[in-house]
Amino acid sequence: MSLMRRIGLRLPIFQAPMAGSQDQALASAITRAGGLGALPAAMLSVEALDRALAELKGDGPLNVNFFCHRPPEAQAERLSAWHRLLAPFHEELGIAPPPPSDDPGRRPFDAEACDLVERHRPKVVSFHFGLPEPALLGRVKDSGALVVSTATTVDEARWLEAHGADAIIAQGIEAGGHRGHFLSDDLGLQLGTLALVPQIVDSVTVPVIAAGGIGEPRGVAAALALGAEAVQVGTAFLCCPEATTRAVHRRALLEAEAPTALTNLFSGRPARGIVNRLMRELGPMNDRVPDFPLAPAGLCELRAAGEANHSGDFSPLWSGQNRRGCREVPAAEQLAWLAEGLH
Amino acid sequence: MSLMRRIGLRLPIFQAPMAGSQDQALASAITRAGGLGALPAAMLSVEALDRALAELKGDGPLNVNFFCHRPPEAQAERLSAWHRLLAPFHEELGIAPPPPSDDPGRRPFDAEACDLVERHRPKVVSFHFGLPEPALLGRVKDSGALVVSTATTVDEARWLEAHGADAIIAQGIEAGGHRGHFLSDDLGLQLGTLALVPQIVDSVTVPVIAAGGIGEPRGVAAALALGAEAVQVGTAFLCCPEATTRAVHRRALLEAEAPTALTNLFSGRPARGIVNRLMRELGPMNDRVPDFPLAPAGLCELRAAGEANHSGDFSPLWSGQNRRGCREVPAAEQLAWLAEGLH
Repeated sequence: MSLMRRIGLRLPIFQAPMAGSQDQALASAITRAGGLGALPAAMLSVEALDRALAELKGDGPLNVNFFCHRPPEAQAERLSAWHRLLAPFHEELGIAPPPPSDDPGRRPFDAEACDLVERHRPKVVSFHFGLPEPALLGRVKDSGALVVSTATTVDEARWLEAHGADAIIAQGIEAGGHRGHFLSDDLGLQLGTLALVPQIVDSVTVPVIAAGGIGEPRGVAAALALGAEAVQVGTAFLCCPEATTRAVHRRALLEAEAPTALTNLFSGRPARGIVNRLMRELGPMNDRVPDFPLAPAGLCELRAAGEANHSGDFSPLWSGQNRRGCREVPAAEQLAWLAEGLH
Repeated sequence: MSLMRRIGLRLPIFQAPMAGSQDQALASAITRAGGLGALPAAMLSVEALDRALAELKGDGPLNVNFFCHRPPEAQAERLSAWHRLLAPFHEELGIAPPPPSDDPGRRPFDAEACDLVERHRPKVVSFHFGLPEPALLGRVKDSGALVVSTATTVDEARWLEAHGADAIIAQGIEAGGHRGHFLSDDLGLQLGTLALVPQIVDSVTVPVIAAGGIGEPRGVAAALALGAEAVQVGTAFLCCPEATTRAVHRRALLEAEAPTALTNLFSGRPARGIVNRLMRELGPMNDRVPDFPLAPAGLCELRAAGEANHSGDFSPLWSGQNRRGCREVPAAEQLAWLAEGLH
C-alpha cells in the first residue's frame, strides 16, 4: 500500500488527534505499537510543542495535527450574551462568573509552528478545518511531510486534493469531537461514513483514510471494505491509561447508554459528544454561542466546579457514535485488538 | 445462515420496499433473481394488494411491507396553514390550489390487510414505524411469516425484539426515504449505519439486516463486516426499468451532485430525498407541515404541474446518501452486481 510505505507504517490505523484528552504519551504508545500516533498541537504553546516533538523523536512515524481556522473577529457583544446565558449556572453552583475573555486558547497553524515542523520533520502533518495558506503549506510539503486534511463531503475532498493534500480523512457524521468541515456550515450536507468513504475514494486520486464510528474491529474491516487505505480511530483510545481523558469523561464513555449529539456549546464549532446537562438545557446547537474558539473560556469555572464534584454536567464529553469499544487497557493492546479487523 | 434458510433466500439482499416508486414488477424481478423482493402495501387498496399478491405467487420468497403509524387526529387548522404556505407556488404556476383534504392516502396495517397475509402467506412481513397491535401481530406470526421491522437506534432494536420481531432492519441515517423511528422523534439520536449495525447486532439475539447508504458492492461488503446477516438496498434499484420511478426522479438520481437532506415536507414525517426547490424554499424540516400522512394531498397539483414540465421542484426525490450505484439496468443485473460485495 503506497500510503503505508510512504509513512513507514506497520498498521494502517491512525490515532485521531484529540486536543484536551491526550499528549505525547498516547501518541508514543500508538506509534511504538505500529500505528500512527498523533500529537494535537492546537492547544500547545510553541515551547510545549517543541518539547513534545523532541520527546517523541525516535518512536517512529508521527502525525502532528494543527487547526487552520481563521481567528474570529472581536465580538464583545456575543461574549457578553454567552456569559449571560451561563449566569444561572454560576449562580446555582455559587461560583463567580469569569470576566468575558477573548483568549482563543486554540491557535491556528502559523509560521512559528511551521518552523517546528521543518525542525522536527514529522512523517505526517494533518490539518483540521481545511488547509493553511499556500506559502505555509508549501513549507510543510517541502519538509517532506505527508499532508493530510479532513473532508466531510465529496466537495471538500476534491477541494483538498486540488489544494495539495496528499491524503484525505473522510470523516463520517458518526465521528466524535470536532467536525472538520470548511466549505459549508450546513451539517445536513455531511454524510455517514458508509456512504461517504466510497464516494470520496471514487472522486479523488489520493489515498483515503476512513473516520467516524469505527472504534472496533468490525468497523475497521468495514472501512477497508469501503475502499479506505487506512482508518482513523479516536474514541476507542480515550479510556486507555496513556490518554489524559478526565475522570468524568472516562466514566461517561464506559456507560454505553447515553446518546451523543453534535453540539457547538463547548467551542463554538459543532462537535460530537455525549449528551450532558448543559447540552440538554441550552440545546446542543445554540446560536448564542460565540464564534470558535471563544466559547470555552466562559465555561472554565463551571467545568472545574462540576468535575470537582464528579459531575460532567458542564464538560465536553467527546465521543463518536460507537463507544462500545472503549476499554481501560493499554493503547498497544487496544491497537492490536482493532488490528484484528484488518484480516 | 439461519435467516436465509428460514426464508429460503439465495442472496442475503433485501430490496427495500419503496411505496410510490415500484409495484410487483420490481419485487418479482428481484425475487426471481435470488434476492428478497418487496411489495409496499401502504398505498394500495385491499383489492389492489390482493391482486398484486396473487400475481407474485410462485416467484419465490416475498416481503410484504406495511406502515403501522397511528392515523393522525383531525387537524383542520394545520391543513389550512399548510395550504396557505403552498399558496404562493400555486399562484406562480397558475393552478388552482386543492381544497384542504384529510384523505390520508397511506393506510396503517389493519384486519383486512391481515386477512390477505393469512390468505397469501408471504415468507416475510415487514413493518415501518414500529409494530402493529399484539392481536394483529399474533395473526401475522401464526401465518408463518418472518416478522421484520426497522430500528434507527439500539433502544428501538431492543423494543422490537421484546415485542416479537423475528429480525431487525438497522436503518442508518444514510438511508433514503422514510426514517423508521417510532420511540423518539429526535433525529439527533439516529446513528450512521457503520456505528448502528454492530451495536444492534450486540444488543439483540435476532438477525440484523443493515440498511442505509449501501447501494454498491463495497457497501454490501462493509455491512456484512459489521455483523449484519443481510443488507437492504433501495436507492440502487430506483433507476431499474422495473421500477415505476418518475422521470424527474430518475434524472435527479443519475445526476450525482445535488445533496440529499431529511425532509418532512412530502408526507409529514422525516424522509431523505435529493434537495429540490420546495425543500430549499420552505426549509427541509418545516413545523407547519400537517401530521403524517396528510401532507401529500396539498402537493398533488404542484407536483403534477411540475412533472408535466419536466421539473422535480415539488416532487419527493427519495434517495439515500450514496446514489452513485444507480444504473438503468434490469434489476437482476443490478442485484448480481451488488452480490459481488458478498465475497
